Amino acid sequence: MTAEHADRIRLCLTELGADWAILSGPDAVCYATGQPIPIETGPSPFTGGPALAFVGRSGGMGLVCSNVEASGSLEDVAVETYAGFAGIVTDQHAGYRRAVEQMIRRLGVGGKLAVQIASHPASVNDILPMGLSIDALLNRVRAVKTRIEIAALRVAAASASQGQRAARHFSRAGLSELEVLNAIRAVIENGAGSRCALAGEYVAGIEHTSTLGTPPGSRRLLRGDPVICDLAPRVGGYWGDSCASFCLDTATDAWLATYQRAKETLDLAIATLRPGISVAAFDKSLRSHMQAAGFSYPHHSGHGIGTSVHEWPRLVPDEFALIEENMVLMVEPGSYQPGIGGARCEHMLRVTATGAEVMTDFQMEPVL
Amino acid sequence: MTAEHADRIRLCLTELGADWAILSGPDAVCYATGQPIPIETGPSPFTGGPALAFVGRSGGMGLVCSNVEASGSLEDVAVETYAGFAGIVTDQHAGYRRAVEQMIRRLGVGGKLAVQIASHPASVNDILPMGLSIDALLNRVRAVKTRIEIAALRVAAASASQGQRAARHFSRAGLSELEVLNAIRAVIENGAGSRCALAGEYVAGIEHTSTLGTPPGSRRLLRGDPVICDLAPRVGGYWGDSCASFCLDTATDAWLATYQRAKETLDLAIATLRPGISVAAFDKSLRSHMQAAGFSYPHHSGHGIGTSVHEWPRLVPDEFALIEENMVLMVEPGSYQPGIGGARCEHMLRVTATGAEVMTDFQMEPVL
Repeated sequence: MTAEHADRIRLCLTELGADWAILSGPDAVCYATGQPIPIETGPSPFTGGPALAFVGRSGGMGLVCSNVEASGSLEDVAVETYAGFAGIVTDQHAGYRRAVEQMIRRLGVGGKLAVQIASHPASVNDILPMGLSIDALLNRVRAVKTRIEIAALRVAAASASQGQRAARHFSRAGLSELEVLNAIRAVIENGAGSRCALAGEYVAGIEHTSTLGTPPGSRRLLRGDPVICDLAPRVGGYWGDSCASFCLDTATDAWLATYQRAKETLDLAIATLRPGISVAAFDKSLRSHMQAAGFSYPHHSGHGIGTSVHEWPRLVPDEFALIEENMVLMVEPGSYQPGIGGARCEHMLRVTATGAEVMTDFQMEPVL
Repeated sequence: MTAEHADRIRLCLTELGADWAILSGPDAVCYATGQPIPIETGPSPFTGGPALAFVGRSGGMGLVCSNVEASGSLEDVAVETYAGFAGIVTDQHAGYRRAVEQMIRRLGVGGKLAVQIASHPASVNDILPMGLSIDALLNRVRAVKTRIEIAALRVAAASASQGQRAARHFSRAGLSELEVLNAIRAVIENGAGSRCALAGEYVAGIEHTSTLGTPPGSRRLLRGDPVICDLAPRVGGYWGDSCASFCLDTATDAWLATYQRAKETLDLAIATLRPGISVAAFDKSLRSHMQAAGFSYPHHSGHGIGTSVHEWPRLVPDEFALIEENMVLMVEPGSYQPGIGGARCEHMLRVTATGAEVMTDFQMEPVL
């Protein structure tokens, strides 16, 4: 599965003139090795440092992680684990350090290193010195998805869509935002057969939906409430994402106008996304379509997605990269208006040779 | 709130002969500054490095974090934020770096530094060099909880207990492990008024309960299933923890004997925990009590808890530290037997001047 990803990382190394990539972000480690790193409860108290993936320009691939992060054997990947969780006093960092040293010997790691700047651990800086930043190049090779990644993203998109159908089923007056969100989460996780990290939001009412960044709370839904339901589950290491907006039973004309424009703008995105256009031009066309009706949004128009829920390219006005076939992009126009409420519509789109394929599959209807 | 914590960190600095503590683990940052760092979906794609807390031996306390991690003003803490999430192309790491540099100037950070070895970021190692490890001393000062921490842990304990009551309510044949777990999660989060990271497990059936480390899945509960329900929610930066075990409708004599011994061993712990005894002696007394009836567990007898779900001291045979008043300790004896099933009983205990106070408050009954 990961041979193609290793080849892409090697392209970065060749471009940089580096000999080894040392990856320390959990999403990059998963991309390189195929091993999803548990993230749902934050950094484990049973690790001595971040899991590390090693990729050599002339071959060789390795993973250092604790016994609580490892999960069976990986194809073509040398694995060194150390005791994170054990029944006696355990120095996790000493174990981590030894495992890194062992991996360096085992693979013959040396020469010029390329690392991830934001997450490289100082604790091994003396044996794996910082060196060059691989981030910008790595972001670019990751943006175009491989066949196997697209299959994984389809599973994640189906999970998000299943969540959106559950949202329409469970959203009703009397339940709290958090109660509905967890009912949705049960459906998503039961479908995935495992716990899933879940990003996004579920907020209801004029105030919560018109104020970006409001976390879901214990406020109970009322008839007439607008709802923004943004669901991003991680399934088997890959993220899905999606957003639906709807009102309970009845909607005001002002809210419906907002919703309709967000939905039409998403439809415009689906109709116009294709290889060769620049992100900036695509972003501008969506913002202009909102603005022509008097609406706007203060956030990006969307973003890439893969082993991280937000990947390069972000769809923003000053990103001039060209869109390529097999990028998988989230597009999420919206509007948030005090006194009226907010609406956002988001699908997961695969860029095809000539246009866009909608990967998420759920109904968008403004009134429930 | 955090003045007392800063004083304890200063004790570590004095002991080490260091001038500034630079803390990079999210739990330690929360301990120092009172700011819970979001962890539920892993490291944010909108940060340029781990949030950092700064504590000076002669005064001064600072927090560097992204705009998506900050939440309002903090008492007596200088805060430097940088753009993590923004509507244009954003170099999060450059922003992080500038914020760290600004904090160094603002507080006059210099001299000898004490850092957390496992999480210190290499990216700022040139301006905040590794220096001494504060971890061992910091673990020790954090183990004895302050009055305000005990209040926070009571809230977290109440949340775990509420979850355990929900578990008795929702556990029934026909639902899957994940469906019950999310119904419990809804009650916990609704009670807390916010999403909560949730560690632990919910597993049912002889095979899942007798195999440690089995994650909850979509297997449906059956009449007669043993259930292990271990719930550890994080509420406002502090963790609660708890474990109940029960059978649905009916239990075998062999499972009941297992359960009873685990429960009696927990009762023994509650009756005998007190300041002045060594962790090793306490751990041994619990293991011996299990062994006298032919049972054993291959894990720790328990652990400290606070802004991390597992803190020092871990209750293991080779930990010779003395137990002190106002440590908050999890105690969790259990047994896991192929063909019979597993059981574990866990309460959250505060060490009082003369004994132990049970902080969690839920019913333990072996048959539902």
